[in-house]
Amino acid sequence: MKAVQYREVGKGPQVVEVDVPEPGPGQIRLKVTAAGLCHSDWFVMDLPAEQYSYGLPLTLGHEGVGVVDKLGAGVEGIEVGGSYAVYGPWGCGLCHACATGRENYCPNAAELGIAPPGLGAPGAMAEYMIVDDKRHLIPLGDLDPVQTVSLTDAGLTPYHAVKNALPKLRPGSTVLVIGVGGLGHVGIQIIRALSQARVIAADLGEDKLALAREVGAHETLISGADTADRVREMTGGRGVDAVFDFVGAGPTLETARAAVAVDGHIEIVGIGGGTLTAGFFATPFGATVRAPYWGSRSELMEVLDLARAGAISVHVETFGIDDAVTAYGKLHDGTVRGRAVIVP
Amino acid sequence: MKAVQYREVGKGPQVVEVDVPEPGPGQIRLKVTAAGLCHSDWFVMDLPAEQYSYGLPLTLGHEGVGVVDKLGAGVEGIEVGGSYAVYGPWGCGLCHACATGRENYCPNAAELGIAPPGLGAPGAMAEYMIVDDKRHLIPLGDLDPVQTVSLTDAGLTPYHAVKNALPKLRPGSTVLVIGVGGLGHVGIQIIRALSQARVIAADLGEDKLALAREVGAHETLISGADTADRVREMTGGRGVDAVFDFVGAGPTLETARAAVAVDGHIEIVGIGGGTLTAGFFATPFGATVRAPYWGSRSELMEVLDLARAGAISVHVETFGIDDAVTAYGKLHDGTVRGRAVIVP
Amino acid sequence: MKAVQYREVGKGPQVVEVDVPEPGPGQIRLKVTAAGLCHSDWFVMDLPAEQYSYGLPLTLGHEGVGVVDKLGAGVEGIEVGGSYAVYGPWGCGLCHACATGRENYCPNAAELGIAPPGLGAPGAMAEYMIVDDKRHLIPLGDLDPVQTVSLTDAGLTPYHAVKNALPKLRPGSTVLVIGVGGLGHVGIQIIRALSQARVIAADLGEDKLALAREVGAHETLISGADTADRVREMTGGRGVDAVFDFVGAGPTLETARAAVAVDGHIEIVGIGGGTLTAGFFATPFGATVRAPYWGSRSELMEVLDLARAGAISVHVETFGIDDAVTAYGKLHDGTVRGRAVIVP
Amino acid sequence: MKAVQYREVGKGPQVVEVDVPEPGPGQIRLKVTAAGLCHSDWFVMDLPAEQYSYGLPLTLGHEGVGVVDKLGAGVEGIEVGGSYAVYGPWGCGLCHACATGRENYCPNAAELGIAPPGLGAPGAMAEYMIVDDKRHLIPLGDLDPVQTVSLTDAGLTPYHAVKNALPKLRPGSTVLVIGVGGLGHVGIQIIRALSQARVIAADLGEDKLALAREVGAHETLISGADTADRVREMTGGRGVDAVFDFVGAGPTLETARAAVAVDGHIEIVGIGGGTLTAGFFATPFGATVRAPYWGSRSELMEVLDLARAGAISVHVETFGIDDAVTAYGKLHDGTVRGRAVIVP
Repeated sequence: MKAVQYREVGKGPQVVEVDVPEPGPGQIRLKVTAAGLCHSDWFVMDLPAEQYSYGLPLTLGHEGVGVVDKLGAGVEGIEVGGSYAVYGPWGCGLCHACATGRENYCPNAAELGIAPPGLGAPGAMAEYMIVDDKRHLIPLGDLDPVQTVSLTDAGLTPYHAVKNALPKLRPGSTVLVIGVGGLGHVGIQIIRALSQARVIAADLGEDKLALAREVGAHETLISGADTADRVREMTGGRGVDAVFDFVGAGPTLETARAAVAVDGHIEIVGIGGGTLTAGFFATPFGATVRAPYWGSRSELMEVLDLARAGAISVHVETFGIDDAVTAYGKLHDGTVRGRAVIVP
Repeated sequence: MKAVQYREVGKGPQVVEVDVPEPGPGQIRLKVTAAGLCHSDWFVMDLPAEQYSYGLPLTLGHEGVGVVDKLGAGVEGIEVGGSYAVYGPWGCGLCHACATGRENYCPNAAELGIAPPGLGAPGAMAEYMIVDDKRHLIPLGDLDPVQTVSLTDAGLTPYHAVKNALPKLRPGSTVLVIGVGGLGHVGIQIIRALSQARVIAADLGEDKLALAREVGAHETLISGADTADRVREMTGGRGVDAVFDFVGAGPTLETARAAVAVDGHIEIVGIGGGTLTAGFFATPFGATVRAPYWGSRSELMEVLDLARAGAISVHVETFGIDDAVTAYGKLHDGTVRGRAVIVP
Repeated sequence: MKAVQYREVGKGPQVVEVDVPEPGPGQIRLKVTAAGLCHSDWFVMDLPAEQYSYGLPLTLGHEGVGVVDKLGAGVEGIEVGGSYAVYGPWGCGLCHACATGRENYCPNAAELGIAPPGLGAPGAMAEYMIVDDKRHLIPLGDLDPVQTVSLTDAGLTPYHAVKNALPKLRPGSTVLVIGVGGLGHVGIQIIRALSQARVIAADLGEDKLALAREVGAHETLISGADTADRVREMTGGRGVDAVFDFVGAGPTLETARAAVAVDGHIEIVGIGGGTLTAGFFATPFGATVRAPYWGSRSELMEVLDLARAGAISVHVETFGIDDAVTAYGKLHDGTVRGRAVIVP
Repeated sequence: MKAVQYREVGKGPQVVEVDVPEPGPGQIRLKVTAAGLCHSDWFVMDLPAEQYSYGLPLTLGHEGVGVVDKLGAGVEGIEVGGSYAVYGPWGCGLCHACATGRENYCPNAAELGIAPPGLGAPGAMAEYMIVDDKRHLIPLGDLDPVQTVSLTDAGLTPYHAVKNALPKLRPGSTVLVIGVGGLGHVGIQIIRALSQARVIAADLGEDKLALAREVGAHETLISGADTADRVREMTGGRGVDAVFDFVGAGPTLETARAAVAVDGHIEIVGIGGGTLTAGFFATPFGATVRAPYWGSRSELMEVLDLARAGAISVHVETFGIDDAVTAYGKLHDGTVRGRAVIVP
């Protein structure tokens, strides 16, 4: 079968021919119907050899959906031919975090050599993929695979952040969304779907702000050194009840710190490499700062239910598997509109 | 191997010889080190044939601990020779409830024919038992199997009830515990371990009240028609912030209703067959009423951690497997002190 | 000034002339701009003499908004000329419940002789009213008084119920709203504003179901003995995650009990005098039952913010104060469309 | 009457004679029975003139208890002769935060010129003090004023921090307490009272560690550059579920950051002037960081209830008001054992 692999540090992805994998006991083989590209794939492929820890060759793709093709021994409750999304942040399944479905915070996975598909385990960017356990499959039902696949990360990650901050998003509250890309434009929709908070969105370009308004932002701002000041003006000096920073660079985090209200909340979702200075004299009284990672199993179910309710959708650009290298190139150059998806 | 089975409706338990079971793919075989008896076993065995739905023969025992003896195909992360407790309320493992470990509220189990060990599936009252999935095993570590086995139900059930009510158990609050038997005497310990609420315990006999005081009740009352009035007097007329009714009979539920405060909470844990009349003019404003069932996977982990911390313990009386019928007889007659445990 | 008073048990309301009241220290006088009628006014006026405990004469009106006209000694932070809504369920202000703004659950109010305006204290159905403390005033800002006044009860009460049940209203959930009258039609809007739950509404008449659909219900049912069965069918047998019963009569509560899912939630909002039978064998495992009362101070702020966001609105029919008796008559006969409001 | 005042920037406190104040409408005069000293008093007095913003002269003392001596016009529900604690972080009383009793996070107080007693308003370190509103008085009942006064800050502040983190303090969890001074030694007691978490305490001196063990710490460490490493060893590499940093200096915050677990929580309570570097690559996934301020009204009630239950107590050293300057000197030199209290 064809697979998109990262085979040599520094060389970028390639389309290669590999064997179709066989599911072991308890495992499931999917015929992949869609696989999403993500900026974090490039984060991984841009690492120097001494920091690279994902194994080689690495079949890419941590966003995947597919149709069940073959069941390993002992698998019950999963329908061959059924359409499923893959829950990506695989954990040990046995610890307290995993027992509540929050496998994204499993403390044992790294030590046990358990890694998400596409980030250690063979990923979704292939004609077939192996899912290690049925608990990592969420029924898609009638949802369109191509339109839905990106939700497994670009939907789940902002959902997890928004849900954590939800108590702050009461009626009358205001939130600031920084960065209206793949995750941010879904994040805005999620905030609108679950609250009546006023949404201010900030990004560097007018096209991004137009997208923000299209998906529900009430007000938009071109990001800059004065963003926090302008946000304070727009909130009577109080600042915003929550900030979702989908960029995570130094300047955006400084904006987040300066714009958040007393007793407010900051979710650092973007992996831009910046840091935020927290402290009694540095952040407003009672304000919390948190850098979440992906989301939980039950949250992915809820994300798919939001899609079923028509409350969220993703702008996608599709490519055949043979065009995967081209797609990654466009992603790298920032010329993908919305989210790039491989349809094998 | 020997097993304690219910083989014919109305005939009570028997000790029989059956084959040692083999674990299928994904399953685990335990060599049982202790199995607990429970009043609900008699509830099952007292059902008339037309209401009995647990299958025959039924190997009893929904409280079980054991040492892993053999792994089915594909089982990883479980140590042969390791000591584990069995999480009993098995669910489908795939729904939203199961994805958060709340398999006790799985909406699919009944339809799928999934039942807890000892309540449909072959239970722990045998030399060996099969556990259907590794997620239903919680490591015991150094905890003594015999002292710990009852916690899988008689600890988990009250823990789940107390944890749900915990926001009401703030400092300065008062709670009423009705029934100081197998579950109630652990419930009192759990309340004391997790809060500074004042505990009033009520039961029919002085010996039960003595046990209540021994395990931490601040005040005790002989149950009767005036219990709610006396509780109101002890709380300045306000009533109690929470009631845990471990009996669940008509009169105790009427006491619960009459004793609870505005904005209070009632957990109906006992299966005494009574009902409580709720409504705008029947229960205090804002008071909640709930009949919980068993507990979640992560809660069982927490119960075992409470035992490790020395915060809870169970009074147990032990029997060999050959004496199981005698043990069930004593349970039926109410002459077991604390909780009865079979040690195969 | 004119006031609408209940002066003699069994005689109904009258429009009378009384002195304009003077605010004492800490009190505020409002020039009333709108006052709402409520079915609970008739509940009070229908009580026989031996059960009537609200004092006579009673100036009616527990829904009120007005403009501050005069401040008692020591009142700071309230603007003369400012437009405010009155928070009705006055408490002692000093207990734990009141310290969190949940004065609706103050355990001391009754004993201290503290009662809501219109339900013991002189109410809003007059040209002027006294508010006992500035904490009971919530700024209206630009909100229209007549369109907004009903929210102080008909908005706050369902909001409090919905907010309490909100954790159950996750994406993918279904709720049942019983009764699409003054409170119910606002309740549906609140559920839609704060969640993506699917809303099934049930009432006795097609006009009510049409209103339900207009304000956002996804599906509607004529209420009857088979309502619960039909709701189960619509939810794949599972039942609904939450029921909001705005009727509270025996049959609707039986529907609620029979329609709720395992681990679901029932809020009994209507004061129809019915009761619900709860218990281990009577209500689904883990399901909670609660009869809430009105709402908290901060919740009223949130309700007004929902109105500001355009998320909720009330259908109102207005009357001059001289037509108050007519208005109460129409309310009694059930011929008011939406909510009746007196504009003095 | 005598009062301890800060009258000139840089000159330290003085005992002076001032007029006994009169309560205005809505206000209450207390005859002070005890007033606590706090390190933050020195923080204020150490500020250079250009940063000092508390007004002069400033009567010190933000921890106060007293007996009601005189009521201003319109005050009801407060008993002359009754013993009360003063809730210190006064807010506007009208905003959303204040409506839930979280006046410590009032966004309007500063702009309105509202300041806590002893930190802007005249404080408790005098024979009499004025409390602006009865809602800021919490009944002491039989609690000893001298033993209790410090709880209004040194109890309330850690209680607020612990309560916020309580969901992380489940059975089986471990917490790290840094700094075992006035607040820290109460914080340890609060953690023990409300959870079964294992407590590791770190401080610079053996006497502090002895105090930590005395009040309930399970394990103690001399603070140093290796503290986080040692804490990781003690937790099987996972880190702690929560850190309470009662120092808040750069090195302790670095320890907090390095010691906290994935999905853990850090409360920065101490005002040592340090900052913590948070971010996706800087803090563990999902870990939250927060710098709380004081606590809420209902929390102070709960703190006093903990004292009533015997669950917490403060080590106090008492001084007459004439010895206030001496007491402040000892506080400055770090030679006070526990908490210093003035008894006028």
